[in-house]
Amino acid sequence: MFGVTILGNNSAIPAYDRHPTSQVVTLNDQLFLLDCGEGTQMQIARYKIRRSKIHHIFISHLHGDHYFGLIGLVTSMGLLGRETELHIYAPAALKDIIDLQLKVAVTTLPFPLVFHPLEKEGVIIDTPKFRVECFDTCHRIPCWGFIIREKRKPRKIHKEKVLEYEIPSVFYDRLKDGYDYENKQGGVIKNELVTFANKPARSYAFCADTIYDISIAEKTKDATVLYHETTYLKDLEERAAARFHSTSAQAADIALRAGVQRLLIGHFSSKYESLDAFLSEAQEVFPNTDLAIEGVTFRI
Amino acid sequence: MFGVTILGNNSAIPAYDRHPTSQVVTLNDQLFLLDCGEGTQMQIARYKIRRSKIHHIFISHLHGDHYFGLIGLVTSMGLLGRETELHIYAPAALKDIIDLQLKVAVTTLPFPLVFHPLEKEGVIIDTPKFRVECFDTCHRIPCWGFIIREKRKPRKIHKEKVLEYEIPSVFYDRLKDGYDYENKQGGVIKNELVTFANKPARSYAFCADTIYDISIAEKTKDATVLYHETTYLKDLEERAAARFHSTSAQAADIALRAGVQRLLIGHFSSKYESLDAFLSEAQEVFPNTDLAIEGVTFRI
Repeated sequence: MFGVTILGNNSAIPAYDRHPTSQVVTLNDQLFLLDCGEGTQMQIARYKIRRSKIHHIFISHLHGDHYFGLIGLVTSMGLLGRETELHIYAPAALKDIIDLQLKVAVTTLPFPLVFHPLEKEGVIIDTPKFRVECFDTCHRIPCWGFIIREKRKPRKIHKEKVLEYEIPSVFYDRLKDGYDYENKQGGVIKNELVTFANKPARSYAFCADTIYDISIAEKTKDATVLYHETTYLKDLEERAAARFHSTSAQAADIALRAGVQRLLIGHFSSKYESLDAFLSEAQEVFPNTDLAIEGVTFRI
Repeated sequence: MFGVTILGNNSAIPAYDRHPTSQVVTLNDQLFLLDCGEGTQMQIARYKIRRSKIHHIFISHLHGDHYFGLIGLVTSMGLLGRETELHIYAPAALKDIIDLQLKVAVTTLPFPLVFHPLEKEGVIIDTPKFRVECFDTCHRIPCWGFIIREKRKPRKIHKEKVLEYEIPSVFYDRLKDGYDYENKQGGVIKNELVTFANKPARSYAFCADTIYDISIAEKTKDATVLYHETTYLKDLEERAAARFHSTSAQAADIALRAGVQRLLIGHFSSKYESLDAFLSEAQEVFPNTDLAIEGVTFRI
């Protein structure tokens, strides 16, 4: 399972039961939280997300609609007796805010909160099963996008053939990496005989607040699914630029240039009650677009 | 109109669609916000509270369930273009938190935010129409209760009689204060002839988080309506004391000692889904008790 569940899709001011930005990515048994606007802990409860499975939280930037819910979530985790590590990846100043809020409450968390200040583009987590990278976006204050990539061996085991050729299971990992097998009699079993080509590894690119910037397309190149903000419709392109935000058509243009398979759009301005025009304007440019509707899980 | 609308009635962890503490008091054309837990701005929208009418916000203490929603409300007010002053009465350290959060967002509010650090018990606002006082409660960290009192002239004008005795309207305020009227001919019109006794001024006492402490009864003596926290039921009296909280029966005991007319109870622990026992345990001691149900407005 690799998917993203939308918890909040609105920009600065909550409206029409739309909430500030937050998303949770499921990758097998891992949950990753991307941004954490006010009310995220309530949205987590509403959509039955298992908060104990969240070990990594990524905060794009320090505008309130992207992080005001973090301290509430973190302190609730503490009250619920969490003991496992929680890793937060965010601009450095967020640590000062959290520390100050814990200090005035005379509160010590019962679990280790490991803070990773975001400083430069590149890999921020690398494990055998997934990798997370961050990249700069162009916003009014420093802002980061994130790419979560699953890792896949290039080949898959052909279960009948490996038994037929009596290949020991300890060698399977090397088969998945493309190696041939040499048996005790010195015979070589060609890799292609006992494996299939695997599907390419999938990835999710979360491009938080940004002005229209074609370098984002390079940074998110070939992602399976791209989330790109769209605060305004096409007719407010100038306002979007002045506020370092994007329009729906601009988000779609980035998706097209990046060659992604699917585009999700969100961060809608609270001036819009209906979201229909966001979808139609984006689909004119990039047909495989969806609105990031709250409560919906999109497969990656 | 003098009433209180409950926006959040739960303790630390939001649960069962119950929200952390927040209440809005309406006194004629004034709205006063008491505490501001996470999600208060959404609750304000949900219950159609006119946020532009809020000029005074009171924060009892710096546990997150009483203030994490403040910065979101304040910044949304700014985004909506508020220009009128907003007064915040709270423990001093809250100013450092707000200042830091505005600084990292490179945000300047378009309205004056006037911060009043709470330092000692007594009157914190005194106007011709109302007065607000704060008092210490006994909690794990410094915590304040608030009393909002309307001001009433002791007498009310008898509209027919003042016409009959030809008393000029400029003298009405002095009549309300109990003075007799002397007419041009030197005749004295006794006050009792042209006025009624007024009803006593009403008051609302908001007693935030506190351990059971009978000095609270003295501090809230004769309030029209008392809100007192009840985090636990009677069987968890020891846990309540250990965490500087109260039980329902203890809240009712304070109401009885204070001689108030009505008791509201809230700040329910998220361990309880049903609130029935809170009500019955309190009513055994103080019958005129109500649960502080969210969305309900109680007349004072």
